[in-house]
Amino acid sequence: MTGPRFNFQLQHADGGARAGELETPHGKVLTPFFMPVATQATVKGLSPEEVRAAGAQIILSNAYHLYLRPGVETVRKMGGLHKFMGWGGPILTDSGGFQAFSMGPLRKVTDDGIRFRSHIDGSEHHFTPQLATANQEGLGADIAMCFDQCIAYGASEKQVRQAMERTHRWAQECFDTHQASPTGEAAGQALFGIVQGGVFPELRDESARVISDIPFHGYAVGGLAVGENKEQMYRFTSQVANLLPTDKPRYLMGVGSPEDLVEGVARGIDMFDCALPTRVARNGSLFTPEGRVDIAKSRYAEQQGPLDETCDCYTCRNYSAGYLRHLFRAKELLGLRLASIHNLRFVLSLMERIRASILEDRFDVFRRDFLAVYQPADETARQQQKEQWLRTRGG
Amino acid sequence: MTGPRFNFQLQHADGGARAGELETPHGKVLTPFFMPVATQATVKGLSPEEVRAAGAQIILSNAYHLYLRPGVETVRKMGGLHKFMGWGGPILTDSGGFQAFSMGPLRKVTDDGIRFRSHIDGSEHHFTPQLATANQEGLGADIAMCFDQCIAYGASEKQVRQAMERTHRWAQECFDTHQASPTGEAAGQALFGIVQGGVFPELRDESARVISDIPFHGYAVGGLAVGENKEQMYRFTSQVANLLPTDKPRYLMGVGSPEDLVEGVARGIDMFDCALPTRVARNGSLFTPEGRVDIAKSRYAEQQGPLDETCDCYTCRNYSAGYLRHLFRAKELLGLRLASIHNLRFVLSLMERIRASILEDRFDVFRRDFLAVYQPADETARQQQKEQWLRTRGG
Repeated sequence: MTGPRFNFQLQHADGGARAGELETPHGKVLTPFFMPVATQATVKGLSPEEVRAAGAQIILSNAYHLYLRPGVETVRKMGGLHKFMGWGGPILTDSGGFQAFSMGPLRKVTDDGIRFRSHIDGSEHHFTPQLATANQEGLGADIAMCFDQCIAYGASEKQVRQAMERTHRWAQECFDTHQASPTGEAAGQALFGIVQGGVFPELRDESARVISDIPFHGYAVGGLAVGENKEQMYRFTSQVANLLPTDKPRYLMGVGSPEDLVEGVARGIDMFDCALPTRVARNGSLFTPEGRVDIAKSRYAEQQGPLDETCDCYTCRNYSAGYLRHLFRAKELLGLRLASIHNLRFVLSLMERIRASILEDRFDVFRRDFLAVYQPADETARQQQKEQWLRTRGG
Repeated sequence: MTGPRFNFQLQHADGGARAGELETPHGKVLTPFFMPVATQATVKGLSPEEVRAAGAQIILSNAYHLYLRPGVETVRKMGGLHKFMGWGGPILTDSGGFQAFSMGPLRKVTDDGIRFRSHIDGSEHHFTPQLATANQEGLGADIAMCFDQCIAYGASEKQVRQAMERTHRWAQECFDTHQASPTGEAAGQALFGIVQGGVFPELRDESARVISDIPFHGYAVGGLAVGENKEQMYRFTSQVANLLPTDKPRYLMGVGSPEDLVEGVARGIDMFDCALPTRVARNGSLFTPEGRVDIAKSRYAEQQGPLDETCDCYTCRNYSAGYLRHLFRAKELLGLRLASIHNLRFVLSLMERIRASILEDRFDVFRRDFLAVYQPADETARQQQKEQWLRTRGG
């Protein structure tokens, strides 16, 4: 670890929306921000330069995946995750709790951790709060996340309470491990706590109180965007955010779609991550100010201009919609890349515009104008996609 | 078409090896050169900037594939192939003769052309010398190729003679069409003739004489690298090259591997194309000065240096062999790209070094030194790969 330690400075609030600055060992990040997902130490299809050029300030990678392949010790020997993947900016790592959750029948949760079989080779593994923390330290993440037990939407209050209480105990264990380790707190790495509690308001209250009593560097809202509807997601985001310390960054995990980013910021969230922009891009679904469009449609066959005239991304500056459509129909690799660049830039540019509007006290107008034009993807289709994604274990 | 018309200038000969300069409507190209293959208007996995940065001066695209998808008329409406795919340099298009050959049972050859079913949707099509020429004019290629009948290795002398004589008649028809069209010769587009004749020395002699009697802008050796062994390929290359005019460029189609490029130049060839570098790259097979290596091997797992210390490509300058191996094991898209960039650069750098050695009258030494170290891929494996590739119709 080099450079300054972790620090968060709130710069301005516009209603519930916040603009700030986060300092990490690998540089400053302006909030609110969106983290592109680099599950296996690569944002699918993109080079680090392309991720940077799209406007990414910080990325997320998955300690679970890297633990299984190539192995934490290998990444450490190769100089740490930043050097390994050629990304010089900050990196947040997910602990593996969510991945373990999405393993379904391959996992077994006990009080001391989660036992699971590798989705790669079926080998048996046992994640504990201590191991999950050590993994993230070994990778050299700027921000590590607590190991938590996520629970499926639809679980009973009793089940959710049990998972929440376990999450609370594990949070303290992660914190203690991180404090004691020479490669954790002492090395400048931040550790974030995660609030659970499913869709039960009392549990969410309790979890927010217990987790924020531990002096983490930041706090995440976990266990949302796992099957509940949008109205519920927004409501619980508000509820939890209102209970979190104002002087620490707040992170809504696994969110989201353009409309969710706007709504999350409105509810006091500073940080987001989601594989959605690059995942749907690889299916030819591209963001425009009016909503997502299918690039394979014949209406684009002879469109000489870019897909989105208002977009400043590499794809829209250099390629016609007609060519992009051709690449998708011909199943050419370059299409996946160009579409991913565009969708990432769309979301990252949205965050830049959100921040600017907050600093100028016009976030509400921005939010209203954006949502008036942007047509969210069909909720049913969205749910199905999410479920399918969960079934394929968060890759 | 803009800029100068087609012209070829022989600059220097060193034994049989030649160095020259080719002028096209889209710029100058130094010979001898290798053309990366952009079958469907994209070099698989790479952006035009990456192809250029790897050292490509000119690329090859396939009129057959573009005719089927997105259609020649669509490309023409989109401003021609250069604009469509974002490649500002020269483009040579293959006529479709070779693709028709590799269709196997889906094709029927008659004296006026080749009838075939689309490998995409089964629709019926009929390529004639006139249509194949018009297609390449519509695409706006700098160099168009004659429509020829390629024939499988192992065919009888009678079959090969029949195909050759047809090829000769078609060559004259292509030439006449190209001369008469306002978008052909008149627009500055070059047209190359193709010598056939299989593995029969008398037929090769006859074909070289007949084809070089037609005043094409250049001449290609066709029907090699289709199953014969290397010794045969080298022998027929020599035989045909010796019969072609010295003041026109000579193109050995579908070749090749590093050792074949060196041997082709030694036999008087100026131009090459082959999908091999990018195709094997996508399988994780990477060129090194000692031969091809499999990046997935465990010996690379913790190699912090690049795969090839002597290589100046983007991949070797920016990524460790260990990371590249991880990308392949994790089946990540970026791996396909990084490997393709490396293999292309290897071949393009080889051509640069070959040219420099010719200009300095030390090609023989270069050839000997290169071949002393470079270990060609196993011949049997090579044949099998080629056959599999032919079965999948030249994609």
